[in-house]
Amino acid sequence: MNKRKGILIVVSGFSGAGKGTLLKSLVSKYENYQISISATTRSPREGEKEGREYFFVAKEKFEDMISKGEFMEYAQYVGNYYGTPKKYVEDRMKKGKDVILEIEIQGALQIKKNYPDALLLFVVPPSILELKNRLLNRGSETMELIESRLRRAKEEAMGIEEYDYIIVNEELDFSVEELHHVIEGAHHMTSRNMEWIREMREQLTEEVKGE
Amino acid sequence: MNKRKGILIVVSGFSGAGKGTLLKSLVSKYENYQISISATTRSPREGEKEGREYFFVAKEKFEDMISKGEFMEYAQYVGNYYGTPKKYVEDRMKKGKDVILEIEIQGALQIKKNYPDALLLFVVPPSILELKNRLLNRGSETMELIESRLRRAKEEAMGIEEYDYIIVNEELDFSVEELHHVIEGAHHMTSRNMEWIREMREQLTEEVKGE
Repeated sequence: MNKRKGILIVVSGFSGAGKGTLLKSLVSKYENYQISISATTRSPREGEKEGREYFFVAKEKFEDMISKGEFMEYAQYVGNYYGTPKKYVEDRMKKGKDVILEIEIQGALQIKKNYPDALLLFVVPPSILELKNRLLNRGSETMELIESRLRRAKEEAMGIEEYDYIIVNEELDFSVEELHHVIEGAHHMTSRNMEWIREMREQLTEEVKGE
Repeated sequence: MNKRKGILIVVSGFSGAGKGTLLKSLVSKYENYQISISATTRSPREGEKEGREYFFVAKEKFEDMISKGEFMEYAQYVGNYYGTPKKYVEDRMKKGKDVILEIEIQGALQIKKNYPDALLLFVVPPSILELKNRLLNRGSETMELIESRLRRAKEEAMGIEEYDYIIVNEELDFSVEELHHVIEGAHHMTSRNMEWIREMREQLTEEVKGE
């Protein structure tokens, strides 16, 4: 298991579940992770930097990339495209990085279909009451927006079975470790180590031959 | 995920891979594990204690237990029966323990068939050369016995795909952690948390109802 291959990881979760903070903390703590950067046709917001938050591309260019199959998944929201550039992710996986896509369920299902080896993780709050409290405590959100987020969470919850693992984000440091263990564990799956197993079998055949 | 259910874990591996030491260390370090005790019809050896190494039962009693379906798996070696008592394991799983069966591939396949939720782990040495060295360093084994163990390893290696995860036992403390992470990760599998997910969905429905 020396030549460790990067795993493609999809992370989804309810708005307010704390995915962003969890992933930032994971990446700062362990070197083997890389969060993927999406391409989008929407305009950069103040403070956003090309290649940091997003790769900003024109609509024509984006559609050209779609037609050339250059996205692992893409979706349209409020008139703008968002997509995961295949080359960006594959280059990093080849270097052994576990690449994390923070995307919603529609994208996650495209990934699952096209990359059956991908690991799909869903981040949830410890309870729905806690989710509501977190949204309320942000202070910045109207009651209407909070209700819309809860309705959206209800829809998303219908798709949870499509994900491989559930991460309950209760206490940040603890949840970072859980997430890390789930991914580390996945590296040990038999199906991800067939090359190594074949080599071991050849060594065994070598040892017992001629008997 | 409060009501944590115990997982049924099968651990197999080549003779000389260090399964026994690995499991002993795991159990002494973490409280959530219980190594299962097999029943056998063979006679106790010097120093072996009823209910510690094995449950020693008469052949007639063992065959009676087989006919009553009281074993999770059983096999015959050199004229003696060996089997895993269902009640022993299920009682401990109900208490939330992850119960580990240290059995060979034939038993592992019986478990996989009857308990599809079971987690099958296979312990291997870092290399076949290392396996051979470990067997040689035991000092107590004849060349003939070592060769027979390697032949047996070659046979067992053909069945590795039946197992879910591979644990490479290189450095003990490190491997214990790997093993623990793989099992901890398995507790987060969506399929093992459907009850909790259903409760969360009900809470969400409760929150957004009447809108």
